[in-house]
Amino acid sequence: MLTKGGCPKNMLSIRDALEALEGRWKLLILFSLQPGAKRFKEISKEVTGITDKTLSKELKILEMNQLVKREVYDTFPPTVEYTITAHGKSLEKVMEELHYWGLAHRREIMGK
Amino acid sequence: MLTKGGCPKNMLSIRDALEALEGRWKLLILFSLQPGAKRFKEISKEVTGITDKTLSKELKILEMNQLVKREVYDTFPPTVEYTITAHGKSLEKVMEELHYWGLAHRREIMGK
Repeated sequence: MLTKGGCPKNMLSIRDALEALEGRWKLLILFSLQPGAKRFKEISKEVTGITDKTLSKELKILEMNQLVKREVYDTFPPTVEYTITAHGKSLEKVMEELHYWGLAHRREIMGK
Repeated sequence: MLTKGGCPKNMLSIRDALEALEGRWKLLILFSLQPGAKRFKEISKEVTGITDKTLSKELKILEMNQLVKREVYDTFPPTVEYTITAHGKSLEKVMEELHYWGLAHRREIMGK
């Protein structure tokens, strides 16, 4: 098993991942973009509780890490859309495992 | 696939997981406890960059979420040890996927 022995090399890659995904919002934003491109307001509505300021900041970091692509369309007024990149989509297994663990955690701690 | 369609119910469980694991430290602390019980100073040494204040705070939250157990031994002076619980160990798959993704992210972004 990977985590047997707590190999420092493995810790480095987990650290890289955690730094790129830091906070409670990034994965939720990526999750909301899975079905397709969305505008800022649509993401904001789907990711309950996030403020516009935080969403704007998080989208910039996600773009910097090549997880999200921001596209501006030459309409009047201009339209901005966000899409998840292939690299962002590669987080699917992480999200899947977090989903299963989140369910188990709810049963364990919240007794639901 | 889980994330196709961005089902709100799945988002809830991912949110639960992210709240319990928030920040860049908790999974690294749990990872360092995988091989066996450790004392505060041993964890602090292994999780490079963490301050004692943060480690102390994070351990309390991990204990509250039943991911870590704190045991005090009646020695002189008293010894305190931290162990990972079965619930904490159930994060192994999440860590494994984060490890693989962290490796891919390093290749993708950092070009290493």
